Amino acid sequence: MKLLIGNKCYSSWSLRAWLLLAAKEISFEEVLVLLDEPGFKDAVHAHAPQSGGTVPTLVDGDVAVWETLAIVEYLHERFPERGIWPSDAAARAHARAVSSEMHASFQALRGACPMNLGKRYATRDRGADVTANVTRISAIWGEARRRFGEAAGGPFLYGEFSAADAMFAPVVARLDTYAIPVDGVSAAYMRAVLGLPAYRQWLDAALKESWIVEHDEVDEPAIANLRSV
Amino acid sequence: MKLLIGNKCYSSWSLRAWLLLAAKEISFEEVLVLLDEPGFKDAVHAHAPQSGGTVPTLVDGDVAVWETLAIVEYLHERFPERGIWPSDAAARAHARAVSSEMHASFQALRGACPMNLGKRYATRDRGADVTANVTRISAIWGEARRRFGEAAGGPFLYGEFSAADAMFAPVVARLDTYAIPVDGVSAAYMRAVLGLPAYRQWLDAALKESWIVEHDEVDEPAIANLRSV
Ligand SMILES: N[C@@H](CCC(=O)N[C@@H](CS)C(=O)NCC(=O)O)C(=O)O
Ligand SMILES: N[C@@H](CCC(=O)N[C@@H](CS)C(=O)NCC(=O)O)C(=O)O
Repeated sequence: MKLLIGNKCYSSWSLRAWLLLAAKEISFEEVLVLLDEPGFKDAVHAHAPQSGGTVPTLVDGDVAVWETLAIVEYLHERFPERGIWPSDAAARAHARAVSSEMHASFQALRGACPMNLGKRYATRDRGADVTANVTRISAIWGEARRRFGEAAGGPFLYGEFSAADAMFAPVVARLDTYAIPVDGVSAAYMRAVLGLPAYRQWLDAALKESWIVEHDEVDEPAIANLRSV
Repeated sequence: MKLLIGNKCYSSWSLRAWLLLAAKEISFEEVLVLLDEPGFKDAVHAHAPQSGGTVPTLVDGDVAVWETLAIVEYLHERFPERGIWPSDAAARAHARAVSSEMHASFQALRGACPMNLGKRYATRDRGADVTANVTRISAIWGEARRRFGEAAGGPFLYGEFSAADAMFAPVVARLDTYAIPVDGVSAAYMRAVLGLPAYRQWLDAALKESWIVEHDEVDEPAIANLRSV
């Protein structure tokens, strides 16, 4: 299997699929396609003619799967024993609902605070819509932990690491990068994600990259630059 | 099982879940929650305290599933013999990718042409972004038909009616309502969806509704009003 991904410093969707594969110890070859380059779509199609033309795209023989949620379901079917989704049916239904919500929501947060693993910014008011997004995200995390995660054991939303955690990993990264205040349950959950060995591995690689994607660099003074560029 | 839905004339997400259940002959009780009323979220939570607060929400015993894609996967697990997704693995991966793309894309079309089953509008230029959305949708439909649907038999994207058709049904309705030109393959596919008995049943009920949702009524002269309001 091959996974096409974008730059690790900025590509939030790529992080989701990559993290799930890596955390679940599914072996794959990683293919980098640089974001924001004119030949982006052609490069994706050169590796995966059947892809919709975005990263991540998973290539498994002659099947190409694009769209992160479709990749997740593909892996769930292909590796049923890896715990891609929680094994309890009610937990799984909840995990899929919040993952789908993640997929199409939180535009204010995503717009104001692009994933950028190379920088740190100071806490500041980023508007009511961002705050409303963070409130909803914390409610989701709290409910998953309280109803499912705590009883299952393990520090992730449903206990063990699952696709739902992969879906929210870029949000965890944003809350961290932009120093957005969260409640204690969310803070503990974020520590679990940020400490995951697969996450550290992605982050280390991201910090070695030298590409700058201008439209993901916000117009604010950084309080730290973690890369040398 | 209970399905919470919004007004049939306007609620595109509700149509998706309802149509899938109805076309697959899964019996359920339908609960209408009026869109655009101040008590909307409370009404959803009165029936389904665990829901994220949107329609559709499926209630099955003490499990509440919101988010349409999560409802689809729940039904796929619960009724494995109904063909919720195509049975061929490559077709299923493709169906999930395009359904996920539907879930979070085509904002221009969705914004400019809200689902409104009660009206008909004349063909007109609705902007380059809408045209680009329609081009991508037609490409998806063409590819699904060519690679999977035609060989499988049956007029739908993957042959028999599946969740992917349910996901695109509100787009079919929009292209029809706003008289948007499409290619021959797409036109044939649209006829199949618009002629589905379950779709006719939803439409008939929609045309008997009397509620007007102002922000889904575009500022254009209608060429037909199919309701009496
Ligand atoms: N809904 C898609 C989003 C994928 C996406 O937007 N990926 C970005 C990079 S993070 C991309 O490919 N951008 C380049 C482009 O769209 O041309 C998914 O779930 O995978
Ligand atoms: N992403 C959701 C979208 C559901 C949605 O936005 N439903 C609308 C009605 S079509 C709704 O509940 N609106 C009322 C609200 O959000 O308060 C899904 O997949 O089901």
